[in-house]
Amino acid sequence: MTAPTRADCAARDASDPLARLREEFDLPEGLIYLLGNSLGPLPRRVLARLDDAVREEWGAGLIRSWGDAGWWDLPIALGTRLAPLIGAQPTEVLVTDSTSINTFKTVCAAATLRPGRRTIVTDAGNFPTDLYMIEAAAKALGGFAVRRLEDPLHLADALDADVAVVELSHVDYRSARLLPMRELTAAIHAAGALVVWDLAHSAGAVEVALDAADADFAVGCTYKYLNGGPGAPAYLFVAARLLEAAVSPLPGWHGHARPFAFEPAYEPAEGVRRFACGTPPVLSFAALRASLSLFAEVDPAALFAKSRALSTLFIELLEPTLQSSALELASPREVRDRGSHVALRHPEAAKLVRELEARGVLVDFREPDFIRAGLAPLYLRFVDVFDAAFALARATPSPRAVSPDAPSSLR
Amino acid sequence: MTAPTRADCAARDASDPLARLREEFDLPEGLIYLLGNSLGPLPRRVLARLDDAVREEWGAGLIRSWGDAGWWDLPIALGTRLAPLIGAQPTEVLVTDSTSINTFKTVCAAATLRPGRRTIVTDAGNFPTDLYMIEAAAKALGGFAVRRLEDPLHLADALDADVAVVELSHVDYRSARLLPMRELTAAIHAAGALVVWDLAHSAGAVEVALDAADADFAVGCTYKYLNGGPGAPAYLFVAARLLEAAVSPLPGWHGHARPFAFEPAYEPAEGVRRFACGTPPVLSFAALRASLSLFAEVDPAALFAKSRALSTLFIELLEPTLQSSALELASPREVRDRGSHVALRHPEAAKLVRELEARGVLVDFREPDFIRAGLAPLYLRFVDVFDAAFALARATPSPRAVSPDAPSSLR
Repeated sequence: MTAPTRADCAARDASDPLARLREEFDLPEGLIYLLGNSLGPLPRRVLARLDDAVREEWGAGLIRSWGDAGWWDLPIALGTRLAPLIGAQPTEVLVTDSTSINTFKTVCAAATLRPGRRTIVTDAGNFPTDLYMIEAAAKALGGFAVRRLEDPLHLADALDADVAVVELSHVDYRSARLLPMRELTAAIHAAGALVVWDLAHSAGAVEVALDAADADFAVGCTYKYLNGGPGAPAYLFVAARLLEAAVSPLPGWHGHARPFAFEPAYEPAEGVRRFACGTPPVLSFAALRASLSLFAEVDPAALFAKSRALSTLFIELLEPTLQSSALELASPREVRDRGSHVALRHPEAAKLVRELEARGVLVDFREPDFIRAGLAPLYLRFVDVFDAAFALARATPSPRAVSPDAPSSLR
Repeated sequence: MTAPTRADCAARDASDPLARLREEFDLPEGLIYLLGNSLGPLPRRVLARLDDAVREEWGAGLIRSWGDAGWWDLPIALGTRLAPLIGAQPTEVLVTDSTSINTFKTVCAAATLRPGRRTIVTDAGNFPTDLYMIEAAAKALGGFAVRRLEDPLHLADALDADVAVVELSHVDYRSARLLPMRELTAAIHAAGALVVWDLAHSAGAVEVALDAADADFAVGCTYKYLNGGPGAPAYLFVAARLLEAAVSPLPGWHGHARPFAFEPAYEPAEGVRRFACGTPPVLSFAALRASLSLFAEVDPAALFAKSRALSTLFIELLEPTLQSSALELASPREVRDRGSHVALRHPEAAKLVRELEARGVLVDFREPDFIRAGLAPLYLRFVDVFDAAFALARATPSPRAVSPDAPSSLR
């Protein structure tokens, strides 16, 4: 089978039902941006929404906008918009705080629902802030043990009657490995524990079916594939069946049943709002509101299919380079096991990333030798993937160009 | 002494060195906004700053703006700008998260610095989220006792060798009572405890001298007198002498010594940055950056003096009404004991607030019978205070108009 040509890719773009969405983004001319897995680009409609939020809501409406402009309801309203993208019911999702804070909240809340058990299990290769916040939760819970797995696919070996919570990233931030949510959740439940899924690297690009998987809790950010803007508010998910019993370890007044009664004792609000804490950054919420409105115009299945097609194409185009150079695929080869970015390794990864940038292709470097290319389906074209793969193939030195004494551990 | 006339007030405006600052704000025509103690109005310069942050930094700069546009440094850079307003050194202040989250962080951090002691003291009338987060901290610390004082001025009676931390609001959100920070801090230290001051209702309008008072920790919000926008990021203060030993109970990756090394173990960053947690909402930070820049053009002493003058004028103008109706002053009469808002009580407070709104004067109602009028010195005129007091005096029913069976407990 011959590799696709640029003309083949242009033909795929021409028949892509999502192609028109590129016009919704303000992408710099001449740049191929493969870092939507890190910070999504600017949806044009954010400008008008934010201008309105500043001039009309803040400037003219002032304090009255907490009610009149719906500021108070934004954490719930945006959770409702997000829900279909992660396979949740509208009442199960709250936009609030940061992913780090939400990890702390959900891990503590889950642990409290499993009294008598005092161990938290996670993946040793998890995103660092997950690991830090799990340790913080273990401490705040009165000294839980934390068990870090070398391979979360061997989770079953680590599950015993002391495990209260398992926290896992759905898609690995480095390798893009996608864990089987349904199977692992079932195994965790069979062992009597609850699960918290971190969706930071999957939501908005990869199918997530929280309710179908019977997931308990989840957290995630909105500044990657959801294009909510730098540091856009994060979210959390609590399964409806747990909403009455689950309580937040950070019970701020925005999660109170009657916040404006200013009562001295905390009483959690009905539903997922009880996981709100302090006053949310409304301007950042306004930008996210505009970004999320784009997804309401898209068939999620088409979006996820395009993500799979883009990453598959990228790997296919790089195949000759993978076979003839020190470049290695660090992501799963099977598309069903992979998120929406592709990780590669190369002894000179940092240099390659710089060379690609000079050629107008933005990817990123992760220690020690990883290159990550995010293939976000909402605005990338198949020809972008072609051009990026071509640039990477050209930049990658042939084997004899690689220093012969490069340590083999990096190869 | 005769009460000041409107012409007297106009004359004071004409000689007010801060008068020009009103033009920096986008205040709706015909509205007297006395809720800057709740949400500050829109500084005009926010529009350009936010537009630049969205179009240039996010839109064109994309992920590169974390370094190139200084996003990474915003929590520190804005802390540096805030520091002189609260009497802190630039290295002692971090803009991050919400006041609720920061209260949790600082109370836990303070408690950990006083091992062996297991009691937290606070004010029973504290802002509710302070109370809730103190309870949450007490739980996360492994079951501390919480002692709520009926009167924080009688703090000495509650201090014993088990008290690790005292958390107090510098200015009471309801009455505007201002606590003597220096004296109370000294008493707390004499008892071997540490203090956390909540500056939400003082910073930006009232003199705060954290270092001069030898304060240990402080928290506050920026959406009131600092005009950072709805839900603008909060801040925290850690005294330089504690920065090496103090650790955050919410150790997210933005507070790590080497966040981009993605290390599996947490190691706190140098200095106050260790109290950062997750990724901050950059767009809300951009608005705050513009708002804070206004304060760099103002002499803080002049600002605080104007605050005192405005609230004194307001009370003076209301004096006849206070003497002849059911309206009562609920704030301290001595200006040195008062923050920048004035609280009043009236059996028909809610109705009065609605009537004032109909006359273009925005104040707020707090259960059961409080009226609060925020007298922010950065943009209010002396004539605004005159007109507001006049409207309130006119709206207040004379005694015989009050229902004779109104419960006396509300009087």
